[in-house]
Amino acid sequence: MRDLQLTEQAAPPQKRSLFSFLFGRPLSSEENIGERVGPSTGIPIFGLDALSSAAYGPEAALTILIPLGLAGVAHIIPISFTIIVLLGIVFFSYRQTIAAYPHGAGSYTVASENLGAHAGLLAGAALMLDYILNVAVGISAGVGAIVSAVPSMQPHTLSLCLGILAALTLINLRGIREAGVAFMIPTYAFVLSLGGVIVFGLVQAVLHGGHPTPVSPVAQPSPAIAAVTVWLLIRAFASGCTALTGVEAVSNGVQVFRDDRVKNARFTLSAIIAILVLMLAGIAFLCRAYGIVATAPGQPGYQMVLSQLTGAVVGRGVLYYITMTTVLLVVALSANTSFADFPRLCRSIAEDGYLPFPFTIRGRRLVFSFGVYALAFLAGALLVAFGGVTDRLIPLFAVGAFTAFTLSQAGMVMHWKRKGGRGAYGSMFLNGLGALATGITTLVVVVAKFTEGAWLTVLVIPALFAVMAAVHRQYQRIETETARDEPLHLDHLAAPLVVVPLLRWSRVANKALRFAYTLCPDVTVLHIEPEEDPDKKTEDNLTEVWKEKVEQPAIAAGFSAPKLVLLRSTYRFVITPMLDYILDLERDNPDRTIAVVIPELVEHHWWYYLLHNQRAAALKVMLYLKGSGRIVVVNVSWHLEK
Amino acid sequence: MRDLQLTEQAAPPQKRSLFSFLFGRPLSSEENIGERVGPSTGIPIFGLDALSSAAYGPEAALTILIPLGLAGVAHIIPISFTIIVLLGIVFFSYRQTIAAYPHGAGSYTVASENLGAHAGLLAGAALMLDYILNVAVGISAGVGAIVSAVPSMQPHTLSLCLGILAALTLINLRGIREAGVAFMIPTYAFVLSLGGVIVFGLVQAVLHGGHPTPVSPVAQPSPAIAAVTVWLLIRAFASGCTALTGVEAVSNGVQVFRDDRVKNARFTLSAIIAILVLMLAGIAFLCRAYGIVATAPGQPGYQMVLSQLTGAVVGRGVLYYITMTTVLLVVALSANTSFADFPRLCRSIAEDGYLPFPFTIRGRRLVFSFGVYALAFLAGALLVAFGGVTDRLIPLFAVGAFTAFTLSQAGMVMHWKRKGGRGAYGSMFLNGLGALATGITTLVVVVAKFTEGAWLTVLVIPALFAVMAAVHRQYQRIETETARDEPLHLDHLAAPLVVVPLLRWSRVANKALRFAYTLCPDVTVLHIEPEEDPDKKTEDNLTEVWKEKVEQPAIAAGFSAPKLVLLRSTYRFVITPMLDYILDLERDNPDRTIAVVIPELVEHHWWYYLLHNQRAAALKVMLYLKGSGRIVVVNVSWHLEK
Repeated sequence: MRDLQLTEQAAPPQKRSLFSFLFGRPLSSEENIGERVGPSTGIPIFGLDALSSAAYGPEAALTILIPLGLAGVAHIIPISFTIIVLLGIVFFSYRQTIAAYPHGAGSYTVASENLGAHAGLLAGAALMLDYILNVAVGISAGVGAIVSAVPSMQPHTLSLCLGILAALTLINLRGIREAGVAFMIPTYAFVLSLGGVIVFGLVQAVLHGGHPTPVSPVAQPSPAIAAVTVWLLIRAFASGCTALTGVEAVSNGVQVFRDDRVKNARFTLSAIIAILVLMLAGIAFLCRAYGIVATAPGQPGYQMVLSQLTGAVVGRGVLYYITMTTVLLVVALSANTSFADFPRLCRSIAEDGYLPFPFTIRGRRLVFSFGVYALAFLAGALLVAFGGVTDRLIPLFAVGAFTAFTLSQAGMVMHWKRKGGRGAYGSMFLNGLGALATGITTLVVVVAKFTEGAWLTVLVIPALFAVMAAVHRQYQRIETETARDEPLHLDHLAAPLVVVPLLRWSRVANKALRFAYTLCPDVTVLHIEPEEDPDKKTEDNLTEVWKEKVEQPAIAAGFSAPKLVLLRSTYRFVITPMLDYILDLERDNPDRTIAVVIPELVEHHWWYYLLHNQRAAALKVMLYLKGSGRIVVVNVSWHLEK
Repeated sequence: MRDLQLTEQAAPPQKRSLFSFLFGRPLSSEENIGERVGPSTGIPIFGLDALSSAAYGPEAALTILIPLGLAGVAHIIPISFTIIVLLGIVFFSYRQTIAAYPHGAGSYTVASENLGAHAGLLAGAALMLDYILNVAVGISAGVGAIVSAVPSMQPHTLSLCLGILAALTLINLRGIREAGVAFMIPTYAFVLSLGGVIVFGLVQAVLHGGHPTPVSPVAQPSPAIAAVTVWLLIRAFASGCTALTGVEAVSNGVQVFRDDRVKNARFTLSAIIAILVLMLAGIAFLCRAYGIVATAPGQPGYQMVLSQLTGAVVGRGVLYYITMTTVLLVVALSANTSFADFPRLCRSIAEDGYLPFPFTIRGRRLVFSFGVYALAFLAGALLVAFGGVTDRLIPLFAVGAFTAFTLSQAGMVMHWKRKGGRGAYGSMFLNGLGALATGITTLVVVVAKFTEGAWLTVLVIPALFAVMAAVHRQYQRIETETARDEPLHLDHLAAPLVVVPLLRWSRVANKALRFAYTLCPDVTVLHIEPEEDPDKKTEDNLTEVWKEKVEQPAIAAGFSAPKLVLLRSTYRFVITPMLDYILDLERDNPDRTIAVVIPELVEHHWWYYLLHNQRAAALKVMLYLKGSGRIVVVNVSWHLEK
């Protein structure tokens, strides 16, 4: 390769602008390593969603049990036990997945590599829906809690939601590492305070022989109005399964971890699951011990289960308020896990050509900014559509996550089968069990929640799937059409036919015409005949000065004069007649390129463009849309002095 | 002029689309004559605003008189008389103006031609504000009346306002003639029914010796809580002056009339003023005779003065409802006068270079569409900002109109002075009297209404003035810079330096490179070195295939091979390094033009563009903004097959 030239690029100068202050200085690609994280930052980044599940999973299950009265609370133990077992199965199989796919072990990757592109897309669509819902529901739940504490904020629900969304977007655009650091304090404060309350409660329960006295009174159970049925228990289980959402987050983000990345990712996942299991078990045991039942949401006297539980264990003191504050923060910030994962998921899908290409571009802070914008936009649209109250979206929630789980596990079965070797059968069994368990759970959730809204996922996931398939088809079409490796062909090179549309004679026209002559010595000028309107002042000077200013100087300089074509416009359109002329010219000269030289004014501020009509731009667009591809648009710009 | 060629343009084919259905077929410029109107259509087009004043002028004056109790109603006679005299003065001077300026005798034209550009702009700004307010206030008043009749519509106030605005916009985009025809029925129904009521009332009053008995009872006057003061009477007069707004409309639109246009315009103006004077006088007399006082707006028991009056004269029968319906229609549709005049006003100002050029373009239906859009947008913004309730804007209203009147009359004084000849002194006296009377009234209105909102006009009118002056400066700058009549210079014509930015080798790149060779045999290709990112799949094939697909074929075809410049991008920016290279090249070659050949994909549907990043467009914009003008952007497009 001759004349190879390397240009070293200086770091962009650091302007002290509001923009830099908000988004931070640009990071070079080499700094990617510095943006990688260890488990201590990884837990807040990828764990917020999963850990916050402790706040709403048990509550969701207990809410279904309300009609059973006090008797219902006994069933929370077996239901929580089943959920924890399911969690264990999912955990072990994701541990394996991380080891097998150290470059990102998301459901999309695993499913598409092992089960084919369609299964991958299905998993991708399911997860995308899950992430979008998670942002909307998480923020809305946090704001809902704030509003129920401070009722005067009620009218500002939507503004609060959108404000938190904007803050999350901003933090995430600053880079993955800063996001992790920002969320460390609330996450660990939550783990410590709620964990402390649970441990203290367990000690109390043991000291009091299993029946401790609540410090603050808990809600009175409503009288039993229904008998226990299997269907009711299944529905309670299906609701409680929301506790599992967010578990896949670590596996999607393996490549974010520092080396040894597999070890770090596995450790992070283990820590998150361990904390979650302990919390779920502790909450279930304490609800049973203190006789805590759910209260009907949206009704007078409603109180969160965790609020009752904390009050019962430690009373309504400082510790209560600290714990509840961290709970609310974690619920509101759980949306952030989506911000960590959604852009990476979209990037993977886009790299395979199923989503628009810009999803693969790292922004100035090394995050996939386009994905962050897309997530913020979609979640914001959901929040606006539901006025910031997204309770009704909760049933949709678990379907996406469990569909992705199932496809991921099934993919791992195929992975081990293909790979073979020592321990392959054991791994196949583990992942197969996972696939079976999560598959059954998916069905249970869809059936149990179908009328409450899960039917929507049955529409939305295939719709997302279809969009991605359509994107892929279009990219493939472009690829087939353009990417042929033909050698450069320079035979029969002929100068183009040159056409210059001019409205009047000016220095801009002069410059355009001069450039036209460098393309080809045969130049055609198109001009619209002035309208004969007695009410209109005409400012047409082209035909008047043509001979003197254009024809004679051209001939004097040794060129042939340009050909002047006057077009009549009966409908005052300027573009249509010019377009028609150029298209005719193209048709009449099937072996020539037509270069249309369009003079343009360049202004230094965008608002000046309001002063001009955008005829040049419109003509260009029309030439592109109507022409066959032999028309080349040349923009000769006149730069106004500042 | 050689090679002169005339191209006759066929009428665009009539597609039966929703668009054509809504907006009508395009009209050719010759059809402008068919779009001209006579007095019967002219009265609804230009008279709606003035005639609807009869509905709110007397009401506004009587509202100020409320504190005087029943005694206040006596003062409506002298106040109305003063207003009618003022109206007469304004009428006679506009009659003269029409004759003197048959191509459009608006305040802007008259003031700028006779008093200078600044006075013209002041008149223009005042009228623009008046027209925008008229649309918002008219629609809002009509909807207010509907809402007070059907209280269940209350929550839809804003939607109703915007719906009417959209309908008016649509009708006006269809052309001036269709708008006139659409408004004929409500206008004449209003004149006939309210006129009938007034005549019938006068007959009753005469028969009953000046003290007729109301058929339906009128509102009980509140007890007098204030004594008559000159200040109160002045304020009542200032409020009643809103009855004069809209009178200038005919003079702005003289050119719309059929020949003999001066005669037709004068007749239309005379008819409008005659009807208005009769109505104002009749209403004042009947209020006195029946003892009708205004009721406090917005308070329980509020009833429009015209509603009381109609009820008192004919009772609450069918005739009452017909009359009140036409009153409401005319008030709501009075906004249309602004639609007829505002675009023409903006066109005149834009032709003098004080507003953006697109205001001068006639759309497909021969109206100045841009002005219609601007008016709809600004009035819509006002309606949204005030939630559809614009009572508070009414005080702003008369200031704009009277400022314009004053400047127009003063301009006419100068006109006659300059012209001289027979009758010049008489005309000067008449217009001078008008200028004096309207000038004093402007001051009275500003002072009397200052705290109620007229202070805003003192801010808005100068602001509009400043914007228009700034637009003019910018156009003049462009004119000075570009419009020098230099002859075409073709000396020292040299082929441009050609730069082709390429991301990969494809048929699109092939085509762009081929065109580059027609510009100049020395071609430089810019390429960003692929990033070394282990997580990213690279698809860079340009460097790999360079020798085989580009270099060798170029040499084989007898050309020198293109020079390949590899650029490194530390910050993943693609545009910045290319831009820097091209700007350096421009700096190093001060006497050459740089042609940047940018390959582009052309898609057939806009949404496909979401699939591509807009780097080509961004590079072009940056080259324009940062370059000095010797950079020419050449777009070589690849048309995807349909």
